[in-house]
Parts: sequence; C-alpha cells; structure tokens
Amino acid sequence: MTKTSVAIVGATGYTGVEILKILLRHPRVQVTSLTAKVEGTIRIQDEFPELKGTVAMDCSAVNVDEVCRKAEIVFLSLPHTVSMQFAPAFLQAGKKVIDLSADYRFSRPEEYEKWYGAPHTDPEGLSRAVYGLPELFREKVKKARLVANPGCFPTGAILGIYPAARAGLLASPEAIVDAKTGVTGAGRKASLPLLFPEVNENFKAYNLATHKHTPEIASILGAALGREMTIEFAPHLLPVNRGILSTIYLKLAAPTTEEEVIGIYQRQYGNEPFIRVYSKGSLPQLKEAAGTNDCLIGIAVNPRTRNLIVVAVIDNLLKGAAGQAVQNMNIMQGWGETEGFR
Amino acid sequence: MTKTSVAIVGATGYTGVEILKILLRHPRVQVTSLTAKVEGTIRIQDEFPELKGTVAMDCSAVNVDEVCRKAEIVFLSLPHTVSMQFAPAFLQAGKKVIDLSADYRFSRPEEYEKWYGAPHTDPEGLSRAVYGLPELFREKVKKARLVANPGCFPTGAILGIYPAARAGLLASPEAIVDAKTGVTGAGRKASLPLLFPEVNENFKAYNLATHKHTPEIASILGAALGREMTIEFAPHLLPVNRGILSTIYLKLAAPTTEEEVIGIYQRQYGNEPFIRVYSKGSLPQLKEAAGTNDCLIGIAVNPRTRNLIVVAVIDNLLKGAAGQAVQNMNIMQGWGETEGFR
Amino acid sequence: MTKTSVAIVGATGYTGVEILKILLRHPRVQVTSLTAKVEGTIRIQDEFPELKGTVAMDCSAVNVDEVCRKAEIVFLSLPHTVSMQFAPAFLQAGKKVIDLSADYRFSRPEEYEKWYGAPHTDPEGLSRAVYGLPELFREKVKKARLVANPGCFPTGAILGIYPAARAGLLASPEAIVDAKTGVTGAGRKASLPLLFPEVNENFKAYNLATHKHTPEIASILGAALGREMTIEFAPHLLPVNRGILSTIYLKLAAPTTEEEVIGIYQRQYGNEPFIRVYSKGSLPQLKEAAGTNDCLIGIAVNPRTRNLIVVAVIDNLLKGAAGQAVQNMNIMQGWGETEGFR
Amino acid sequence: MTKTSVAIVGATGYTGVEILKILLRHPRVQVTSLTAKVEGTIRIQDEFPELKGTVAMDCSAVNVDEVCRKAEIVFLSLPHTVSMQFAPAFLQAGKKVIDLSADYRFSRPEEYEKWYGAPHTDPEGLSRAVYGLPELFREKVKKARLVANPGCFPTGAILGIYPAARAGLLASPEAIVDAKTGVTGAGRKASLPLLFPEVNENFKAYNLATHKHTPEIASILGAALGREMTIEFAPHLLPVNRGILSTIYLKLAAPTTEEEVIGIYQRQYGNEPFIRVYSKGSLPQLKEAAGTNDCLIGIAVNPRTRNLIVVAVIDNLLKGAAGQAVQNMNIMQGWGETEGFR
Repeated sequence: MTKTSVAIVGATGYTGVEILKILLRHPRVQVTSLTAKVEGTIRIQDEFPELKGTVAMDCSAVNVDEVCRKAEIVFLSLPHTVSMQFAPAFLQAGKKVIDLSADYRFSRPEEYEKWYGAPHTDPEGLSRAVYGLPELFREKVKKARLVANPGCFPTGAILGIYPAARAGLLASPEAIVDAKTGVTGAGRKASLPLLFPEVNENFKAYNLATHKHTPEIASILGAALGREMTIEFAPHLLPVNRGILSTIYLKLAAPTTEEEVIGIYQRQYGNEPFIRVYSKGSLPQLKEAAGTNDCLIGIAVNPRTRNLIVVAVIDNLLKGAAGQAVQNMNIMQGWGETEGFR
Repeated sequence: MTKTSVAIVGATGYTGVEILKILLRHPRVQVTSLTAKVEGTIRIQDEFPELKGTVAMDCSAVNVDEVCRKAEIVFLSLPHTVSMQFAPAFLQAGKKVIDLSADYRFSRPEEYEKWYGAPHTDPEGLSRAVYGLPELFREKVKKARLVANPGCFPTGAILGIYPAARAGLLASPEAIVDAKTGVTGAGRKASLPLLFPEVNENFKAYNLATHKHTPEIASILGAALGREMTIEFAPHLLPVNRGILSTIYLKLAAPTTEEEVIGIYQRQYGNEPFIRVYSKGSLPQLKEAAGTNDCLIGIAVNPRTRNLIVVAVIDNLLKGAAGQAVQNMNIMQGWGETEGFR
Repeated sequence: MTKTSVAIVGATGYTGVEILKILLRHPRVQVTSLTAKVEGTIRIQDEFPELKGTVAMDCSAVNVDEVCRKAEIVFLSLPHTVSMQFAPAFLQAGKKVIDLSADYRFSRPEEYEKWYGAPHTDPEGLSRAVYGLPELFREKVKKARLVANPGCFPTGAILGIYPAARAGLLASPEAIVDAKTGVTGAGRKASLPLLFPEVNENFKAYNLATHKHTPEIASILGAALGREMTIEFAPHLLPVNRGILSTIYLKLAAPTTEEEVIGIYQRQYGNEPFIRVYSKGSLPQLKEAAGTNDCLIGIAVNPRTRNLIVVAVIDNLLKGAAGQAVQNMNIMQGWGETEGFR
Repeated sequence: MTKTSVAIVGATGYTGVEILKILLRHPRVQVTSLTAKVEGTIRIQDEFPELKGTVAMDCSAVNVDEVCRKAEIVFLSLPHTVSMQFAPAFLQAGKKVIDLSADYRFSRPEEYEKWYGAPHTDPEGLSRAVYGLPELFREKVKKARLVANPGCFPTGAILGIYPAARAGLLASPEAIVDAKTGVTGAGRKASLPLLFPEVNENFKAYNLATHKHTPEIASILGAALGREMTIEFAPHLLPVNRGILSTIYLKLAAPTTEEEVIGIYQRQYGNEPFIRVYSKGSLPQLKEAAGTNDCLIGIAVNPRTRNLIVVAVIDNLLKGAAGQAVQNMNIMQGWGETEGFR
C-alpha cells in the first residue's frame, strides 16, 4: 500500500504534536514534513522526549514550496489569523488542507471580524471551507478541499445540543453551556496565569458572555437546524491537563422522560463511531474520554424544573482538535473513519 | 478574661478539625472536649500531625454527661440523622448548640424526611432552630440556642442569588446553580470514588436533579424573600482539596448593566465582614477564598442573552462549614463577629 | 491466525484492568475469562466505563475449573499469599501462569516468610518459577511455565543498577535507591491515606528501611551478578496517578566520565526493545514513560563526590506490572516481544 | 506601641508577597513601601486578589531614596546579582537589610563567582553579612545589620545534617541530599517548563551534581562544624505548590539506635520554636509543614545498612524564604522570635 504524504505546519504546539502521534500509528499516511515557528532546525524528539524511539524527524520554519513538494495533505495547527496567510497557497498548489484555527469556521467574514477583531484576508477560502464536524456535515466533508476543524468547546456543545433541538424537544432556542476545560486547551505558551502554582488548587470562570466560541456554537447550530439559537457560553479552567466537560441546560417544551431523551440521542448518533450516549442513570466523567476521539453524552431530566441537562465530554486535544482533524482527513480521503485510532 | 469552654463532637472529620484549628486561635474560647466515633482514646495530634506542637488533647467516644460538665457551647460535626440524636440532650442541659449537619435546616419535618429518607426524631428542636446564615438571619442567630449551620453548597448559592431576587431584577423565579466543589466536601471516609487516582485528572457531575442541597437552597431563599424560587442545582467534583465555585444563571427582567447589578450587591453586603463583591470586569477564583471565611462574589451581565451570571466562591470547610459555625458562635455570644479569624 | 485464549484472575484492580487493555489490542490473544473477588457477576465496563464500546464481558468470582476450560494462559493479578493458593491448580492443569504478586519472586521460602510474615504454601512452585525480568533472564523466561512478574520498584532499581555493577564500576556493593511512585502503585482499595485530600498537595516517605521490595532488589541483583549487594531502599508517595522515578546513588571505584558510563549502559541494553538510555545531559521525566512499557535511564556523574547517579523511570502499571507481564507472555509463547504494544 | 516601618523590595514574586502576608499580621511592624520591577504603579491587591480586603497599597519601581525615607528595615526579595546592586545603599543609609538572594551567603567571593558565574560587586557587604539560619547562628544574627537569608534547599538540608555530624555519629563527611520541591521554589516567571501541563502528572530530577545550593550547604555546615563536608545534592520537582521534603542519607560510624539519634536531635533543637523532631516510627509529611515556619525532622536508622536517614520538611516559601526572613528580623530587633507567626 502506498502511503499518502502528510505535512504538519505548527508541529510544536500541544495540538500539532498530538496530530503527529496519531499519524505515526496511522496505516495509510507517512508524515513527511514538520514545520513550526522555530529558530533554525530542531529535532522534534528533543522538544517532546516521549517521541524518542518512535520518531526521528527535523522541524524547521515553514517554507511553503518545500511543504508542497513533500506532502499531499496539510494540517495547519496555527494561531488565528496566521492560518489564512498560509492556506491559500496550499490550496492553489492542489493540496487538501485541514485547518485547526478559527479562520475558516464562519460563513460570513463579518462575524469573524466582529469576534476576532481582525479583517478576514481570504474570503474566497472562507466560501469554500467546510465545517468539519462529521456527525453533522459528513457528506460535505467528503468533498471538501479545505476543512475548518471545529473549536474544542463548540464540538461538545454542538453535539450535546443538536439532537434535542432537532427533535423539537425545546421550549425555547436558548441554551446555557457551562464548560470546564483542561489547561492544554490554552495552548503551549509561556504565560503567568498558566503556571502550575496559578492553576493548581484553583478553578475559575473566564470570558463570561464574551468568549469567541460563542458565535461558533450559535452559527453552526443555526446552519444545521435551519433556525437561530441563543447561546450563553461560560468557560472555566480546570486543574487537569486534558478534557472538556460541558454541562448544558435546556428547557423542555413538554414533560419528557429521561428514557425518551436518551432514545432520541441514541437514534441520532447510533451509527457514529466516535459518539457514545450513556444509559439512564449514568453520566460520563472527564477521564473516560481522555486519550480517545470519543464524545461521551449523558442525559438527566429534572421533572420538577422541566430542565434537560446534557453532559458532553471530549478530550480537547483529540475530538476537540487533533483527533477530529484526522477523522476529517479519513473522510476526505474516503478511508475508514476510525483508521489510525483503533 | 475568662474563656468560654467549648466542645467539638465529631472532631476527627475534615470539618471537626477545622473548627478546632480556628478555636485554637480564638481569644475568647477554650476547647475543653474533643469527641468522635473512635475506639478508646486517641490523641488528636496523632490523627492530624499538623496539630503537633499546637495542641495536646485526647479524643474519645462521646459521653453526653461528660461533655456537658466540660463545655458551655457544643459544636456538633456529625453525619445527618446522628446530630438529632444528640442535640436534645445538650439543649436540655442548657448548652448552646451549633449543628453542622442537615438535621435542623428545614422548617418542616416532611421536607427533611422526603429528601433525607429518614423520619425526623426531634421536631421540637426543629421548631426552635435558627438557620445560621448571618447575612440573612443575623438577628435571629443572636437569640438562638440551636443554630443549624448551612450546607456548603447552599451558602454560596443563597448569598449569590439573594440580592438580585430581593431587588426584583429577575424575570422568573428560576435559578440554575452549576456548582463545583473540592473533595473535602465529601467528608473524610474511605471510599473508592474518592481515592486519589479516581479524582485526579478527572472531573464529573453527580446527583443532577436530585442533590439534597436543592431544597435547602429553595426553602431558605423562599423564607428570606417571602416567595418561592425554583432551583436547578448541579454539583460537580473538582480535583482540588478545598473550595466551592458556583456559577449561577439568572434571567433579568429588563436590560440592566453590570454596574447596576454590582451596585445592588455592594449595597446589600456593604457592611458584611465576610463578603467581598468584586468590581466590574473581575471575577473571583477558587484560591482567593481558600483559607478564609469569605464569600467572594463576581458579576457578569450578558446583554445579548439578558442573563445575569453570578460567580460565588467560598472555602467549603470555612464559610461553607467550620468558619461559618464559629461566626455563628460569635454572634450568639455577642462577641465581635470576626474574632478568631483576623 | 488462531488466537490463544487468556484468563485474567483479579481483573478489577488497577493492574488487572491494565492487562485487559493491553490484551484487547494484542493480535494473538483472545481474553476469554475475567474473574475477581466480586459478588455475583458484574460487567467489567460498568466498573471501568472507559472500556465501554471496546469490551462487553462479565466478571465473576474465580472458579478454577471454569478458568481452565476457557484459557490456556492465566494472569494472576492477586494480593500476596492469595496467588499461591491458585497457581498450583492452574499449573497442574497444564496452563502457563504469569503471577503478578510477590509469591514466586524469591528463590528461598525463608526469605519470603521473613519479609512477608506468612508461611510459603507452595515451595514446589517456587522452585520452578522464573523471575520475569526479560532484560536479565530472557532465556529462562522462554522456557518457563510459571513466571514471577517483578515488583514495580525492583524493575526500575535492578535495571538501573545492574550494568554499572556488572561492569565493575562500583567501589562498594552498596546502592541507595530513593524511589518516588504514583498512587496506583498502592492498588485500588478504599483507604483513608489514599484519599484525594490526603495525597494531593502532599508528599511523604514511607516504610524506610523496611519495605518488602528491598530483599527482592538485593536477591535478584545478587543472583544476576553472582555476588551480594546491599540495598537502601526508600520509597516515597507522589501526588500523581502513574509512574515511578528512582534516583539511585552508587559510588564509583575510579574516576569515570558520564560518556563512559552511558556507553556501558547503552551496550548492555542496546538491543532491548523496552529500554532507552538517555544521552549525556538529558534525564528522563516521569511523564515520558507514562503509558509505555519502557524503562528510561539517565546518567549523571559527579566528579567532585565520585558518585554515579542513575535515574530510572517506568510506568508502574506497565513495565512495573501489566506491561511486563504481557512482555513475559510474548517471550514464553515465542511471539514478537513487542506484540500488543506498538 | 510605635510600629517599625518596613519596606519590601521585590514585592510581586511568590516570596515577596509571602513576606507581605506575614508582616500584615505582625504586631510590631507597619509595611510602608512596596516596590518591584513594574511599569508605573500597580495596586498590589490587583496582582494578588487574595489580598483584597486586607491591604490597599501601591507598588512601583524601586527608588532607593524614597524607600530610605519610608522604612527602617528593608527586605530584598530580588534575583541573584540584583540584590548586591541595592544592598550597599540601604546599609549606608543606616537601614537593616535582610536579603533573600544568594548574594551574601558565601564568605568567599570566589566561591560565589565560581557557582553563580558573575563577579561579586560588594565584597565589603559580604564580609559583614551574617548567614541567617537562627538555629545555628542566632547570636550573630542578633547583632547583624545585613542578613543573608538561607536558600530554601540549604535550610532543610543543613538543619537535617547538623546534629548528627556535630555529635560525631558519622562514619564519613559525606551526605546525600535527595530533595523534592514544590513549584513555587522556581519563582513566579513565565516559563514553558513551569506551565501546568508540563509539571502536572510529572516528576523529574534536575541539575544533578551541579545545583548552586550544593556549595551553600557544604560551606555553611563546614563553618558550623569546623570541618569540611561533601554534599551530593539532587533536587527534584514535585507537582505541588509548596514545600520541600529532603531525604538525607548518612553513614553511621557505629551501630546506633533510632532512639539514640532522635534523642540527639531533640536535645539539639529542644528549645527551638520552629523545629519539631518527630518521635520514633513517625515521619513528617509535606503538608504538615505547609503554611508554617516549622522545620519538621524525622529519623530512621537501618541497622542492616548502618545508614541514618533523616527526613527534613519545610514550607519553601516560609521557613525556606519569607518566614525565616521575618524570624531573622525578629531576632535582629530583639523581639519575640515567633511574633507575627502565632
């Protein structure tokens, strides 16, 4: 079997190295290029010693022509506004691009500009990009050349809200998403508030009412449902390395049992290889998703308040970033969706 | 100055030892009796080596007569249903009792029985007990002989909701309390789910829609406001030792600014020695309350959704238990409310 | 390819479930029996929800005849003194047995009895058992029917000391092993000192001068080297889930450079699939071994004190227990030694 | 009572703020000046929100004249090489100076220059400075105008070794100090290796054979004992916020019991307000020192190896830095040594 050549642009972040780790186990690809914002050339196993013995590759500053010569598929694991500087060249060279930044997640450039505070420099790319949440948009991903990989928070939130909203269970289009994330979600950058003594034995809410993932959740749900939703998104920082647990509050239109709601979710996601809906009385915990590409969903109904509470758990670096990116690659290439994972 | 003698019944739990630590620094009291469910007699400093050098006291099984001979004030740090077996005898002997269990928190025995699944064996005590949340019921606490010390979750939730509800800001009587607690909140008992490897690098929701603190929050707010509130209470377990952060979602009746809401909270709590309302743009973090008897309150308003989000933080062992118990003692005795703390 | 049937006796501990997880990925085996000290029959995925979706197996109390009918290879993941109650029957039935307790690690029953305080009830098994540290005893493991899988602490300590001692580098037969272990090393049992609040933000030495792994390290090194060694073994408890880092202090007989020592270790272990000797100036960290079956070794030489310091790191549940057990199975069966791992 | 005015130069680090917290509770001093390397003027309670409600002070860049006008005692909580730029001016202005850097810890400038790689620019100050370990040098501290506050690692190591060495128990002048520190020991600076995900669930040795605290331990012990000692110092990084536990290995000259050794340590430190020697069979744990200015010492003797193992535990920010600095101030001023602590 000839292996497909793959490049990772931005290989020294938590997400970039996670893509690398999955691809090293993937039977159909060969990683042929690692680049990042580095001085000169480093050996990736010096930066991440756990790679020693499994990989011996150099990583240097990105050179678009060289990446194009070496690879057919390009993962962009770059900060917002940087991705859209690189994506057009790779697309023009005929490469398939999976972008993990927010740059191609919005259909309208104005919305991007409003929330990210920067002009969008590649509206053409934006118009071609497909939002890579396979459980909602698999058919579009199959044909995409540019996939906008979803944000970590939106992945769990959207998958947790969609079935109830689609089934017409809700009394209102409002959802409260109280999300708690591990620290790798903030990226790998030297920063006082991310030092161990600041995070350990601590917990905090941040960016209430203003977090940039809010419009992503709302607009993607709107596109999938064909109607607007109003999202209150409240992120919190957990003293753990990995994982996001979102507790989602929805108001039921009519009395509904837990069994009925669980049935609706199970029918929605019954064939999904990476979603597990928990049975009655059982809720997913953070560690049950850690290290997997799964989204775990638990359901509670409070008949007294008529609230539906959905608990959605993912590993922020896998289903929330690198894992979903590889899942998207598998779909774009027509490969088995779970290849590289099991 | 003659010191007042104090007994701690249930001294070997996380809360009991915390009461002891505060009282050791308290200028007006002398701890004269430590008892707990132990075999024979232990030395408390063997159980909690951090006490070595500061205390040398024995702790043995509770003997009511002996405790009555030794102490004028009795703290009951006992499990639910056990407290009400002991409280009547101490009251009859003329002691002031501060009970940290749930046994005396409800005005109606039926509510206790419904949520705690056990008959209430001391309805007379129940009718005399005062709910010891000083910020709402200080005048009653002053005259109380039996104080029901609030639960850890209800303390932050009630203090976070009350000013907005009282000021008529809310569109509905509904509140969602998404609470996250450190592990000492579960008490000090050998239990598989509380082992380090089960909690560390993990996070979970539990008892959704059914937690026993739900009716406590609702009934106390109802009593203070003179009207019913509906509470959705969702507790989560954090991998930290101490602290509770509650994120509270309320719907505003009319557009209101953050400044206006903060002003209302600051006026409500302006003279409170143990409440700090944060200024605009600043939210309290868990570690800022750890080790203190303070309740920290932060306010965010989302004009897009018209939600008011209140973040309330306490140390579950202090303002959520032992600290508030000592604060209540100070009030019952007519002492300075902050004595023993600063 | 016909798969070999395997049983895990003691499947509900941290080690037992780890064996299961490796075997589920192993191409040559089929797990056909899970047993443990349980009431009735449980589903293993209810006990360990991370298994949901990958396994659906029952686990019930051990019945020797039934295990013998179902499996050709038996892993015993049982407490000390319990293993030797079961091993004889499985051996008699012609099964290959890999025992993870200490019951078969000593050549002389008296030594076992002295340190474990219990009579040895299967001296015949003891005389046939092979100590399953492949890097020292691979040829014997190939022919073994009963393998005594090494203790977690001895694995790193022995692998860290052996090359220097064998090469005659040492001035004396003494070694100090200052070892630090994650909490899963203590097993999965409800116990006050292993509660999250007791371990978190804490660190302690324990069993100084008396830990039962001391004679195991000394006697195995003695057998491999043909001469006695004196071991000071000092274990400590780390607030992490997994991993052991041992800092080993040895006195050099003559001035020796780091390069020379590293060369000796690399020659000793050059062909070992599961050992990585770090290059000069680089020391292994705990997380670099976590999740792998590797033993990582770093070397520092202090010319001022003439001390050789060896840092040896393993994952206590893998190379320190379950992983090494599967490695031993692979060797016993004549399979590729890394099958199931990569 | 007139309060003595005190300045903290370097108030925004973990140590600086810890000095501030102790002094806020100290009955005899008034903090009159906070300075640090900051742009413009910040409010210290904005940097450390846990100070809100207890202090309202500005912090700006250091101006020596202004500090001299405001304060009689100056704490220098500055990086190495920076302290000696400031100390001379404060001394010349007649202030008492307590320096927490390494700049004044060595008697010979050459030793400083060898290990710190920088020329010493204040040899005169060096000759006047007193090493501020009260348990060994209390009489000198009483008369000092410039105190060199000990390093965090040397404090526990020296206090742990000194009694055994002084009593002539040791077979050789060699000591191995295997030390494990919490992360605040590294200071409060943005740095990739100190990020939460790098430290959490990890553990590592660092600077083996080369750490700069090695000569401090050796030279101070040499000065106190009147003979040289050889120190192997091996620091490790723990995933906790606070505390240092040092496991110290010493070889006994003759068979000695634990009781005998404990007796020697208790006689040495019997009157010390901040040292607690544990009784036979009991070892100090990290959390037992956290939040205190105590040094806790536990003793184990291994008759088989004739090793004496001393476990010494301190809070690195208190007895290892800020607490000991205040203790030194109390001694220099002739105040009660425990004032501000209890």
